[in-house]
Amino acid sequence: MTTSSEKGPVQDGTFEQMWADLAPVGRSSRTGGYFRQPWTAADDEAQEWFAEECARRDLRVERDGFGNVVAWWDTGSHAERSALLTGSHLDSVTDGGAYDGPLGVVAALAAVDLLRERGFVPDRPVGIGVFREEEGSRFPVACLGSRLATGALGWADARSLRDRDGVALGDVVDGEQGSGLLGDVGAFVELHVEQGRDLVHRDAPVGVASSIWPHGRYRFDFTGEANHAGTTRMEDRHDPMLSYAMTVLAANKQARLSGQRATFGRVLVEPNGTNAVPSQVTAWLDARASSTEQLLALVADVERMAVDRAGRDGTDVVVTPESVTTEVVFDADLAGRLAGGRGWPVVPTAAGHDAGILSAAGIPTAMLFVRNPTGISHSPQESATVADCLAGVEALADTIAQLTQPARPDQPTPEPS
Amino acid sequence: MTTSSEKGPVQDGTFEQMWADLAPVGRSSRTGGYFRQPWTAADDEAQEWFAEECARRDLRVERDGFGNVVAWWDTGSHAERSALLTGSHLDSVTDGGAYDGPLGVVAALAAVDLLRERGFVPDRPVGIGVFREEEGSRFPVACLGSRLATGALGWADARSLRDRDGVALGDVVDGEQGSGLLGDVGAFVELHVEQGRDLVHRDAPVGVASSIWPHGRYRFDFTGEANHAGTTRMEDRHDPMLSYAMTVLAANKQARLSGQRATFGRVLVEPNGTNAVPSQVTAWLDARASSTEQLLALVADVERMAVDRAGRDGTDVVVTPESVTTEVVFDADLAGRLAGGRGWPVVPTAAGHDAGILSAAGIPTAMLFVRNPTGISHSPQESATVADCLAGVEALADTIAQLTQPARPDQPTPEPS
Repeated sequence: MTTSSEKGPVQDGTFEQMWADLAPVGRSSRTGGYFRQPWTAADDEAQEWFAEECARRDLRVERDGFGNVVAWWDTGSHAERSALLTGSHLDSVTDGGAYDGPLGVVAALAAVDLLRERGFVPDRPVGIGVFREEEGSRFPVACLGSRLATGALGWADARSLRDRDGVALGDVVDGEQGSGLLGDVGAFVELHVEQGRDLVHRDAPVGVASSIWPHGRYRFDFTGEANHAGTTRMEDRHDPMLSYAMTVLAANKQARLSGQRATFGRVLVEPNGTNAVPSQVTAWLDARASSTEQLLALVADVERMAVDRAGRDGTDVVVTPESVTTEVVFDADLAGRLAGGRGWPVVPTAAGHDAGILSAAGIPTAMLFVRNPTGISHSPQESATVADCLAGVEALADTIAQLTQPARPDQPTPEPS
Repeated sequence: MTTSSEKGPVQDGTFEQMWADLAPVGRSSRTGGYFRQPWTAADDEAQEWFAEECARRDLRVERDGFGNVVAWWDTGSHAERSALLTGSHLDSVTDGGAYDGPLGVVAALAAVDLLRERGFVPDRPVGIGVFREEEGSRFPVACLGSRLATGALGWADARSLRDRDGVALGDVVDGEQGSGLLGDVGAFVELHVEQGRDLVHRDAPVGVASSIWPHGRYRFDFTGEANHAGTTRMEDRHDPMLSYAMTVLAANKQARLSGQRATFGRVLVEPNGTNAVPSQVTAWLDARASSTEQLLALVADVERMAVDRAGRDGTDVVVTPESVTTEVVFDADLAGRLAGGRGWPVVPTAAGHDAGILSAAGIPTAMLFVRNPTGISHSPQESATVADCLAGVEALADTIAQLTQPARPDQPTPEPS
């Protein structure tokens, strides 16, 4: 790969200053984690920060009715589906890390700076996108903004989605406006912190994604009968907490046995009182698998065990898929062209991304990963070194250059620098 | 037992009107359950209702620094520890029933009306007490008001107790004032809806309590490591939800095996996101047993299993007792005198009550139970028939009369009417 010495000094001050500016936004002083749920004060502040950085760079900001935004570097010639989009998201999971999302946005801005410093002029428009509610941490669908922008999810279905306080999506955005952001987009490249340790094991600061595992969210509603925790005999209970607990263990066991992933990370209990048998336990299964068949089999196994246990507990369970994404295989040609000359490892991921949604919508898409020393993500412990982040900025700049370099008829497709 | 025909018409209009007035206070239109957490608008409204009913009856209202109140019927002669106290509480569990607490307060007011209608004049003061935060549904100690009033819990320890929003008890009451409410009290009788079906099985509308099972609340803090639910391999996780789930099932199994009671009805998860392995699961064990030894053994078994599982999950667990009450045996002589001539069944209960706290403080105490057709309590389904409630009013009036009847030197201790 290229190094700073070949390219001149990287503007690390710019990257680091942007990172420092964004660092306090939505950060909990108690946990050190981020709470940038979409359409909250913290998210608004992050969006304003982005708008200011775009203004500083004379990028033209375009918004859609779903809260997504693209900042355009209007260079080169406009042609149908010619533009190159990069970017990521700024929202976080609850108590999340600093890098998941924002690294792709900050790196994109820094990559534009680096290309301009190099005097590079793309032959087509380059956009920096910020998709809204990628994490699904407020409304119950992950990649909500990109699903709406691509039409994978229709507004008629989405408008009544509700957050934990009962606020409808239709109350916070004017989705009737629709989205015209992706009409000109011919390719998408998302840079993201790695959420595992493949790059650590391969001793590489940057890698390219091959695919995204099939994954889904499934709501389990366990219904029992509230009663007094002291006076109700064990054998007279209809306790949905028991059915839930067995389902948690069953999901873990099935995922281990089948080599897949299953997690119950979120649960709501009614009435959630110490001295009352609950009336209701609602929990969400996050399931991921190496194939759609494996995913369906895993979820079916967990559901069967939940139903069995509920039968023994005298409770009911209803399972509702909230968002299911089949396997995404990124454009192999594109990944090969990016990785080829640079020795970047090509690795799969079990994390969902807006890149998966755009790829599924037929837009040739690639992802770059930046090494994460601990592999931890969706946690305040998520991390990446400055050196690796700057390597990511260079990799993204090189990628943009490769994909937007004016073709010269007398030369073959340009090799990476 | 006595019947209406022997005593003249019961003033059921008065009882039913009070019940109707109190019915909408703090009631959720969604669930039909009650949310009368102490020092909230709903609780304030219930307290105002009580003050108005006391004013209507010319009862002298006395309050302490902990939010407890006693309304005095200042009859007969005052002597040290001569007064008879009745009453119960008005606060509810979250999403609780209508009867747990309020029935004892409304019945006490109606019993005073009935005694006055009979022309009965007690030979000593009769108080109607309303203890605050009996359920421990806001602050983490059950029977908080009666524990403070009796000195079982000191203000220095209690003032920093915090509710779920972080509000300290010292911020809502001026506990420095202390309590002088119980100084004159020589006996306490609490009427309460039964929280089981003993009286159904015995075909009796009213019964007398023999004892309260030892019981306690224990906080289990399971600590793990937040991580991405998709990308973190199952074998790399430190998932406290797994440790919690196994502990729920272990507690249920141990309680069944030993014939005791164990419940996990309340749980808080951090960060509680669908796509994140949790960093922390905090849950409360409600445990009850027929002896203190059985209680300690039950909790020790559950803790041992939690620690074992946490070791296998790579998580930590810390168990903190929040309130533990050893066995309360009510005054056997008093229970016998009340039940003796009336054929009221004498039954134990596994529910905690302010009566247990006053009994432990050395005040001769009795409890009357009113039949609950379903046995369900701490739930909107909690119920009692009007006929049984009115039988309870008569029973309480008879009990007050028996305990405050002027002794005539030429006669033996009066038998129940």
